[in-house]
Amino acid sequence: MKAIAVEPGAGEPTLIERPRPEPDDGEVLVRTLRVGVDGTDHEVIAGGHGEPPAGADRLVLGHEAVGVVEEPNGTDLAVGDVVVPTVRRPPNGTNAYFERGEPDMAPEGQYHERGIVGADGFMSKYFTSPADCLVSLPRELADLGFLIEPISISEKALEHAFASRSAFEWELESAMVLGNGSLGLLTLAMFEHVLAVDRSYCLGRRDRPDPTVDIIDDLGATYVDSRETPVDEVPDAYEGMDLIYEATGYAKHAFQTVEGLAPNGVGVLLGVPGSWEFEVDGGRIHEELVLHNKALLGTVNSHRGHFEAATETLAQLPEWFTDDLVTGVYDLASYERAFETGDEVIKTAVEFDTL
Amino acid sequence: MKAIAVEPGAGEPTLIERPRPEPDDGEVLVRTLRVGVDGTDHEVIAGGHGEPPAGADRLVLGHEAVGVVEEPNGTDLAVGDVVVPTVRRPPNGTNAYFERGEPDMAPEGQYHERGIVGADGFMSKYFTSPADCLVSLPRELADLGFLIEPISISEKALEHAFASRSAFEWELESAMVLGNGSLGLLTLAMFEHVLAVDRSYCLGRRDRPDPTVDIIDDLGATYVDSRETPVDEVPDAYEGMDLIYEATGYAKHAFQTVEGLAPNGVGVLLGVPGSWEFEVDGGRIHEELVLHNKALLGTVNSHRGHFEAATETLAQLPEWFTDDLVTGVYDLASYERAFETGDEVIKTAVEFDTL
Repeated sequence: MKAIAVEPGAGEPTLIERPRPEPDDGEVLVRTLRVGVDGTDHEVIAGGHGEPPAGADRLVLGHEAVGVVEEPNGTDLAVGDVVVPTVRRPPNGTNAYFERGEPDMAPEGQYHERGIVGADGFMSKYFTSPADCLVSLPRELADLGFLIEPISISEKALEHAFASRSAFEWELESAMVLGNGSLGLLTLAMFEHVLAVDRSYCLGRRDRPDPTVDIIDDLGATYVDSRETPVDEVPDAYEGMDLIYEATGYAKHAFQTVEGLAPNGVGVLLGVPGSWEFEVDGGRIHEELVLHNKALLGTVNSHRGHFEAATETLAQLPEWFTDDLVTGVYDLASYERAFETGDEVIKTAVEFDTL
Repeated sequence: MKAIAVEPGAGEPTLIERPRPEPDDGEVLVRTLRVGVDGTDHEVIAGGHGEPPAGADRLVLGHEAVGVVEEPNGTDLAVGDVVVPTVRRPPNGTNAYFERGEPDMAPEGQYHERGIVGADGFMSKYFTSPADCLVSLPRELADLGFLIEPISISEKALEHAFASRSAFEWELESAMVLGNGSLGLLTLAMFEHVLAVDRSYCLGRRDRPDPTVDIIDDLGATYVDSRETPVDEVPDAYEGMDLIYEATGYAKHAFQTVEGLAPNGVGVLLGVPGSWEFEVDGGRIHEELVLHNKALLGTVNSHRGHFEAATETLAQLPEWFTDDLVTGVYDLASYERAFETGDEVIKTAVEFDTL
C-alpha cells in the first residue's frame, strides 16, 4: 500500500510502499480517508522534532486522521464505522498514564506519538489501531474528521484553563488567541460558536487583505496586529483578557501574556519554542501574577475524552468556517501540495480514499 | 485607647492614643487579644507598601488579629466569643467581589486592607468589624489565633493549586516551600500534618545551627540550601516537585520554579517583588510548561472560607511546632520587640489583653 513518509533530515516527504498491516488482538484495521497536515508535521519534515520507530530509517507521517473501519477484528466497532484515532501509544508496554486514560499527561519517554515520535503515523491507505484508541464520528462529519485531533488539543487546553479558575466565580467574557494559524482559528471559532465568549480577539502579523484575517472578521472577532499592539499592550489598546490562548510558539508571548490578562485571568500555552534567552521584567511579571491572581498553564496533546468533546464541537462550527479554513484537500497523485505553505494556505489534508 | 501606628516613611511604629471605636449597625466591638507581625508589616513600616486611610496621617498597623467579642451589638455573635477578623473591606460602598464573598479576587483599587492599605488595622485595644468579617475560633486556640490569617493565605493558595490540577488525576507526593520565614514554615507544617505529603522540602539560605532549620528537621522535611542547590537544580539534586510554594518574594524563583517542578506540577507564587529586569531562557521555560503540562499561579489574600479552613488546620498543627515557631509575644510595654528582626526571630505578636 502507499504511505507518505519522511527520512530524518531529508526535508521533504516521499511516497513509499508498505505492506498492508494486520490487526493484532484488540486492534482494528482502518481504511484511511483523510489525514490533516499541521505545524508539527512541518517540524518533523524539517528534522527539528520527532523520530522514526526504533530501527526504522523512515517515519510514516500523519497524526490528524479520519478513516473507516475495514476489519473490526472482534472488537465492538462495525465495518463502515467512521473513526478518528488518538495519537499517543504506550512506548514499551503500558504505564499508569495510559492505564487511567490520560496518556496526554505522560512525561517525555513514556509515550510514542503516531506520526511524530517512535511510531508510524496514519498517512497510509490502511492503518491499525487498538479499538479503544478510536473515537467514532457521525458519517456526515467524515470529510472534516481530520479536524478532530487539532480541536481536541484545544478541548484539553480549555478544560485545564477552566479548572484552574474553578476555585472562584469566573466568567469568560474576553478571550484572545495568539496566532492565526489553523489551530488558532479553530480555537477562535470555539470561542465564538461553542463558548459564546462575549468579545474574542485574534492576534497575528499579516496585512489585509488576508484569508485568515477575513475569517477572523467573519467570525465576529477583532483582529489585533501584533506589529502595532504587542500582547502586553493589549489591555491599554483593547481590554485585559480573561483568557489568552497562545498558539504561536513565540516564547516572548508566554511572558507578555501575563500583562495581557485581566485580573484573575488565565493564559494557556501551546507552543514549543526551544531554548531562547532574553530579558524580562521578571519582578513585574511575578508581582502581576500574584496581585491579580493570574495563572499560566502549559498543555500538550489530548486524551480520548477530548476527542469525544471535539466531535460535539466540530458539529457546532458553521459550514462557511470550515469551508474557508480548509484551503486544500489533495489526493495521493498530488500529495506534495498538501505540504506547501504560504499566506493563502490555512489548513490542508491528504485524501487517501472516500467513504 | 492605645494603638500601634506608623507614619508613612517614618521607618518605625509608635504608640498612639485613639478614641475607642463605636460599632455601626451590623458591626461588633472586639477587644483585641493578640496581633501577629509579618513581612507585610515590615514593608508598610519601611514605606514600600501600603497607605493610611484617606485624609489620615497615620495608619494603625496589624492584619493578623485575634480578639474577643465585647459588644455583639445585635449580631449573631455573643459576648466572649473568640474571633479572627478577615482583612479586606470594600473601599467605597460594596462591589461584586465582596457581594459574592470573594474579596480576595478583587483587583487593585476595589478593596482596602485593614492595617495595610486605606483602612486602620487591628493593633489597638479595641476594634470594630462587620460581624460577617469575623470568624469564630475555639477558645483553646485563642492564644494562637493570630496565626489564622497567615494560614488562610496558604489555604487559598493550595485550594487554587489543587483546582488547577483537577482536570486529571494528580497526586501530591513531593512538595517544596521556597523560603523559611514564618509563612513558609506554616505551609511546610501543613504539608506534613494536614496534607500528609510524602516528601516535603524547604529551601532557605541559612547555615546550621539555625532555629528555622531545626523546625524543618523536626517536621521531618528536607532542608535545601539554595546557595548549594538553586531551585532549577532541585530535580537533579533531589527530585522534581509536584508542588512548589514560593514565599520568598525573589522574582527569579518564579521562573526557576518551572524547572523545579515534576511533570504536571504546579508552582504557586505568593511574593510581591516589584520591578526587576533579568535574563531568562524564556524559550526553555515556555517549552517546559507546555511539554510537561505545568502550571504557575499567583495568589493573594484569602476569603472567609479560607479563614474557616485555617481554624481546622491550626487545630491539627502539633504544639511543639507552634511553640518553636512563635519566638516572642510582647505586651504593650515592650511592643517594639515584636518588630525586631534577626535570625533568632521567626514569628512574633503583640499582646493587647488576655482572655
